[in-house]
Amino acid sequence: MNIKSLGLELHNLAKRLWPINRSITGEGVRKTLLILKELNPELSIYEVPSGTKVFDWEVPREWYVNDAYIITPSGKKICNFKENNLHLLGYSIPVQKKINLKELQKHLYSIPDQPSAIPYVTSYYEERWGFCLTQNERDLLEEGDYQVFIDSKLFSGSLTYGEIFIKGSSDREIFLSTYVCHPSMANNELSGIVVSSYIANWLSNKKDNRYSYRFVFIPETIGSITYLSKNIKKLKSKVFAGFNITCVGDNRDYSYLPSRNGNTISDLVAKHILKYTYPEYKSYSWNDRGSDERQYCSPGVDLPIASIMRTKYGRYKEYHTSMDDLVNVVTPDGLLGGYNITKLAIETLENNKYPKINVLCEPQLGKRGMYPNVSTKISSTEVNLMMNVISYSDGYKSLIEIADLCKVPIWELYPIIEKLIHEKLITMLDEKESF
Amino acid sequence: MNIKSLGLELHNLAKRLWPINRSITGEGVRKTLLILKELNPELSIYEVPSGTKVFDWEVPREWYVNDAYIITPSGKKICNFKENNLHLLGYSIPVQKKINLKELQKHLYSIPDQPSAIPYVTSYYEERWGFCLTQNERDLLEEGDYQVFIDSKLFSGSLTYGEIFIKGSSDREIFLSTYVCHPSMANNELSGIVVSSYIANWLSNKKDNRYSYRFVFIPETIGSITYLSKNIKKLKSKVFAGFNITCVGDNRDYSYLPSRNGNTISDLVAKHILKYTYPEYKSYSWNDRGSDERQYCSPGVDLPIASIMRTKYGRYKEYHTSMDDLVNVVTPDGLLGGYNITKLAIETLENNKYPKINVLCEPQLGKRGMYPNVSTKISSTEVNLMMNVISYSDGYKSLIEIADLCKVPIWELYPIIEKLIHEKLITMLDEKESF
Amino acid sequence: MNIKSLGLELHNLAKRLWPINRSITGEGVRKTLLILKELNPELSIYEVPSGTKVFDWEVPREWYVNDAYIITPSGKKICNFKENNLHLLGYSIPVQKKINLKELQKHLYSIPDQPSAIPYVTSYYEERWGFCLTQNERDLLEEGDYQVFIDSKLFSGSLTYGEIFIKGSSDREIFLSTYVCHPSMANNELSGIVVSSYIANWLSNKKDNRYSYRFVFIPETIGSITYLSKNIKKLKSKVFAGFNITCVGDNRDYSYLPSRNGNTISDLVAKHILKYTYPEYKSYSWNDRGSDERQYCSPGVDLPIASIMRTKYGRYKEYHTSMDDLVNVVTPDGLLGGYNITKLAIETLENNKYPKINVLCEPQLGKRGMYPNVSTKISSTEVNLMMNVISYSDGYKSLIEIADLCKVPIWELYPIIEKLIHEKLITMLDEKESF
Repeated sequence: MNIKSLGLELHNLAKRLWPINRSITGEGVRKTLLILKELNPELSIYEVPSGTKVFDWEVPREWYVNDAYIITPSGKKICNFKENNLHLLGYSIPVQKKINLKELQKHLYSIPDQPSAIPYVTSYYEERWGFCLTQNERDLLEEGDYQVFIDSKLFSGSLTYGEIFIKGSSDREIFLSTYVCHPSMANNELSGIVVSSYIANWLSNKKDNRYSYRFVFIPETIGSITYLSKNIKKLKSKVFAGFNITCVGDNRDYSYLPSRNGNTISDLVAKHILKYTYPEYKSYSWNDRGSDERQYCSPGVDLPIASIMRTKYGRYKEYHTSMDDLVNVVTPDGLLGGYNITKLAIETLENNKYPKINVLCEPQLGKRGMYPNVSTKISSTEVNLMMNVISYSDGYKSLIEIADLCKVPIWELYPIIEKLIHEKLITMLDEKESF
Repeated sequence: MNIKSLGLELHNLAKRLWPINRSITGEGVRKTLLILKELNPELSIYEVPSGTKVFDWEVPREWYVNDAYIITPSGKKICNFKENNLHLLGYSIPVQKKINLKELQKHLYSIPDQPSAIPYVTSYYEERWGFCLTQNERDLLEEGDYQVFIDSKLFSGSLTYGEIFIKGSSDREIFLSTYVCHPSMANNELSGIVVSSYIANWLSNKKDNRYSYRFVFIPETIGSITYLSKNIKKLKSKVFAGFNITCVGDNRDYSYLPSRNGNTISDLVAKHILKYTYPEYKSYSWNDRGSDERQYCSPGVDLPIASIMRTKYGRYKEYHTSMDDLVNVVTPDGLLGGYNITKLAIETLENNKYPKINVLCEPQLGKRGMYPNVSTKISSTEVNLMMNVISYSDGYKSLIEIADLCKVPIWELYPIIEKLIHEKLITMLDEKESF
Repeated sequence: MNIKSLGLELHNLAKRLWPINRSITGEGVRKTLLILKELNPELSIYEVPSGTKVFDWEVPREWYVNDAYIITPSGKKICNFKENNLHLLGYSIPVQKKINLKELQKHLYSIPDQPSAIPYVTSYYEERWGFCLTQNERDLLEEGDYQVFIDSKLFSGSLTYGEIFIKGSSDREIFLSTYVCHPSMANNELSGIVVSSYIANWLSNKKDNRYSYRFVFIPETIGSITYLSKNIKKLKSKVFAGFNITCVGDNRDYSYLPSRNGNTISDLVAKHILKYTYPEYKSYSWNDRGSDERQYCSPGVDLPIASIMRTKYGRYKEYHTSMDDLVNVVTPDGLLGGYNITKLAIETLENNKYPKINVLCEPQLGKRGMYPNVSTKISSTEVNLMMNVISYSDGYKSLIEIADLCKVPIWELYPIIEKLIHEKLITMLDEKESF
């Protein structure tokens, strides 16, 4: 596939998903998952009934919206949900009444210092109704009576999520999670859905996966908690690495956020690949967290989940507003960068074995045509690198660690490893040699 | 109690103890302990006979002084012990004779570059007599015959020390040691005695101590060696933290000196509280030691004793001279600072448990009114801090370590912990969870 | 022995060995070893037959050279092996023919940017012949027919090496290795041979060695591989420290190259002594290696071998050319420095025990005359250092570690340790106390 066109393909999928009114439950999630299933037919869709106890939480009622808007005193229709689903406060209860401006103001949300942005606001766990609009629009509201109309429904339905499982040679799993609860916003969070879908597609077409892969498309927080409450035992026994896929669509930066203790293989991989592809990447601390790693890495859950992002949630001005769009924020190049860095992380995990030299002392490379047979004053960088790899192949150091010791990215070692395997000089161990 | 007046109270006790002629044995120690017993009636006084073997040492003879002075050729009485007990070299043997200036000079001690200070000099382990005086006074001595008179006695008596034990819920102990062998000097060492006495008083009036407390008031070096030789087994089995209380009375600085290996809970507490109360505090190394930690942390003894001081012994110009007084060096504010930092160390130890979250994943805080129920772009610092505490409450990290991870002093976590306990969301473990 | 004259003696031995045509096998090695045996009669000489399998390698055929030169078209004899053995490419096969300049050029080696240096070139593992000459000489070669003459022989003989074993009180061994395969070059590598010989001589005359010593004089790479293949089991069970002795003859620098994992006692010693004798020494990484540590530290062999050098191989412009001589590069002072630093490393290992104090608490030093018996404001540096040593003598810290904690070189502690042993205050443990 042409690389340039892959970025466009990702962007096109994001555009198609853009208008859907996603929330933590409801039709928007189902519509989104059905579209994703086109690319990954193995996607399974699960429904968990409202009221189900999930750890300290409970699956909430399902939310349905038919229409919502306000009629101004002068008869203009504003805050029209059908024009932009951000206009309606998420999980608004139904309402239909005439109120004056002062009363209305209590239900309006805008951002004074971003006057042309509609904010993204929700109230999942307290009954409430409201509208979101730009500060500019709000400043123009005239005195008088306003007709507010929200045709919504909160009812005992279910929480919906999707899961893709791709079996590899080993039943050890790499876990990837993204979230489907955000309405019309692009970096946070259409980018994660789109990149995850294409990564799943790539992996399921690739027939030689060493590890098994589990992707989940869930609503944030309540979704990961629900999913964990049903699957924690399996995840804790199988998952040895993973990533929370979020904010992977803008072309401005790369970022890393660690797992809780910061010392998992996922952290090692993230830091290694970012160091060699985008050395000026931003490194955050666990205190800066804010997505589903909060659940996956919580005490007692402790899954090895790190985040590799483009520009992190909360760290760009368009975040959680209507400005987080597919024009100025998320671009084909931005999404392609998010896709590529995720793919690189997975390739690195797939290749990260423990090389062990099969002979004592240095092997005689000359007789294999792998070493210059006339001595020279200065040996070549290539030969030096190969000798370093051989020297570190003690069965205790992973290939990532060896690459770090050699001060090169792991992928520069692949041709060397291939040659050494071909010459039967090294064995690649799946696990670190036990002492 | 009014805080300001507590500083004055401490200072008044120091003033009352000032004139007593303390040494490593003798009446001065006994008088001092009897005064301290007024504030802490539970103080027990012990006598260990001269000649008792204590590890590599032997309890020395007891020293008694009735009077001591010199009569100059012109009939003036100088170096009058009754005016300032520093005039007499500590442990001077009795003497009564007429000698010329040249002979006298061999027995005089002064400090050329601190010409108005009387130095503090002792000779515990070699028989000797001498007088200490200012360089200014010494420079004026005329030629001629001097009458020296020391009415002292060295005899088989005992070494005296005091001990206060305050029982807490647990029989694990916090050990505090200070020394009663210094005559009329203030920072080193009336301050330690005074601060320790008031800390003991505070703890014995407080009825909810988690730990037990053991205070000792001993002569330096020989006292701690004697005390250890009698109690080492008990101390090693019970004491898990402690401090050597010395130089806690001037208002100029704060200082920390580590235990021998620098990695005990006492060290952690000292560094944590100083970092947040006086970030520019001085941090010394074990090589800079000079008080009873030399015994408590010696190889094989290895008690977890650190020092939190104001200005460290040997690091202020008035040290070990008559200038180390209750006017220019030790002040009510200085003593109050010493008291407060010691109290803070103890409160920190009392509060330092291992929080463990009772639920898997983040708890639903909204339903408990602990979380904003409308989403906003930026979450508050208070909520963030609570979420961080929850996230680190894995039963393996102490509250001090969690505070360090959150980059706040431990006391900022107390209201959060209280709320989380009240909501039954965390359990406070006394010990780190075992893996 | 006069120190100055020792440098000259080392230099004289190097001069005597200079003209011999050493290679990885053959008469040159045997002649060299016989000369070394004069100084160390206990040197044993071993022969390993050509064709012997040694790990992944095979002992090569033996090489013998009688004569070699080129006659130019104008009848001049150039590249005369008898004038400088570097003129002949190492392991050249015999040849005797007339060829034109163009054909000859394919067999000539020179260094364009070092036009007056004859390079050192070998071809051990591929049959080849060639001559090495200065670029200046090469540039003057006229067109025409050249008579090339190499009277050499490659035949099934043996590889020769020498070994000196010096028995100490313990059968734990310190291993020192140097190489005898380089023809007329001085720093790399007559210096290692000469320094090792004199160190062996010193040790074998010294009657009180704590450890046993094993020196090997081998050809580089194939020699260490051969030696290891015969002795690995013994070495792995006995050797606890060691050094590869190379490039120890110039007076320009000191350098350290670590063992593979950089954490052996040999590494600790090397860094400690260089820090205090030549603080600006160069510290290399394992990636910079290039001598027999490549074999001794290879995975599965893992002997504790570090290198303490003067200027490292490959890091001086004369390296592997005729300019690496006994005039401008290697000097008596340079060799003496190499000898002294190696001796210091050995003395440090011999002295590196684990002091353990015999009493609890500080000992009473006054009664032993080891402590001032009048107190003073400032205690002396000497007394402080002794008190620090006592304080760290817990049986868990080696004397090197204690010296590092005291911020002094280990040799400053020897008189203190001696005094403390004499006073029966410490016991020197051979091994770290087990917990």
